[in-house]
Amino acid sequence: MTIRYPNGKKYIPVQRSARVDNKNLSFSNRGKTLEDELNETNEYYLANNQAVIHKKPVPIQIVHVKYPARSAAVITEAYFRSPSTTDYNGVWKGKYIDFEAKETKSMTSFPLQNIHEHQVEHMKNVTEHAGIAFLLVKFSALDRYFIVPYEYFEKKWERMIAGGRKSITLSEMEEISIEIHAGFNPRLDYLSALDSYLQKPGIETIERQENL
Amino acid sequence: MTIRYPNGKKYIPVQRSARVDNKNLSFSNRGKTLEDELNETNEYYLANNQAVIHKKPVPIQIVHVKYPARSAAVITEAYFRSPSTTDYNGVWKGKYIDFEAKETKSMTSFPLQNIHEHQVEHMKNVTEHAGIAFLLVKFSALDRYFIVPYEYFEKKWERMIAGGRKSITLSEMEEISIEIHAGFNPRLDYLSALDSYLQKPGIETIERQENL
Repeated sequence: MTIRYPNGKKYIPVQRSARVDNKNLSFSNRGKTLEDELNETNEYYLANNQAVIHKKPVPIQIVHVKYPARSAAVITEAYFRSPSTTDYNGVWKGKYIDFEAKETKSMTSFPLQNIHEHQVEHMKNVTEHAGIAFLLVKFSALDRYFIVPYEYFEKKWERMIAGGRKSITLSEMEEISIEIHAGFNPRLDYLSALDSYLQKPGIETIERQENL
Repeated sequence: MTIRYPNGKKYIPVQRSARVDNKNLSFSNRGKTLEDELNETNEYYLANNQAVIHKKPVPIQIVHVKYPARSAAVITEAYFRSPSTTDYNGVWKGKYIDFEAKETKSMTSFPLQNIHEHQVEHMKNVTEHAGIAFLLVKFSALDRYFIVPYEYFEKKWERMIAGGRKSITLSEMEEISIEIHAGFNPRLDYLSALDSYLQKPGIETIERQENL
């Protein structure tokens, strides 16, 4: 059964990662959720002293709590809230890193309804304060992963706001992002990919060509 | 009734801040929780384009969720989890900011049992990755607020580990921290205080004297 936010967005339980910890981290371990892959990656980064990046807890509105005599408090009524920021943030080489991770089953495009307006605003704010904000998108049916820097995502979002298409096509995705490949350890080396992106102005060339 | 974590730590509900938004933000508005004060401050920083700093959601272990036919999913069983990181983080002038905020009713010392070992480890990691980690401590009975940079907190923590006292006395606090004063807007201008701390090597002088 799929758990959903009031707005229809799919909820991936927090505790799932704990259950996966003991699994064999085989290179060909398909069918993992993106959250599992990122947790493994972030644990690797932390253990190898590369970065301190964590997933934020799922935001919950607590309504009722019970206090049994000799045991822990139990929350008996609570609701999922829409996130006002992104899922992951932390520090890497002194830089502030902030991203949202999304999976799509589509083989042709990434639907923008996966992202909340508040999250877009948050990524914009982060970018303005010299933080590094991006989306990490997994096309699960294709086993392909893309890092979309906020600046490029923003253009597609604004196109939608202006009445244009409500998704980023796969070929657009290939153009505006850095593709990363799942490996063994770290599972999804998004920081290395980001590092080369930040050092080379490669993608900006594409942008300039588009503007000609 | 006080809500507590399994380890006895007091839980302050997330939704409280929403209820406070319409209150008069008077300078002399005593009795606010530190969380309220920090939420106001962070909203001010965001609105005035100074920083993007948010409180993380309270970590919850979800056990059961119900799906009523035509309404939102309801969490019917969940537990509070111990936080593995700090409560607040974000970006300020491109720098990664990370802190834990704690209130004490004591008039003489700050009990170290207020802090989890995981949180200390996290702050240590942040510092090693060139982020700025600190504690923000409120002595609520005294209406006094202190920023304790991680480097200074660490010494008191290690003293406890080595079998020494389990708290930081008020006079020690005055020595190792930057005191901030509650104001109107922003309510608790911790970033200005941090700014002057980072620019002046004042506190390090104390440290050097201690080591003589």
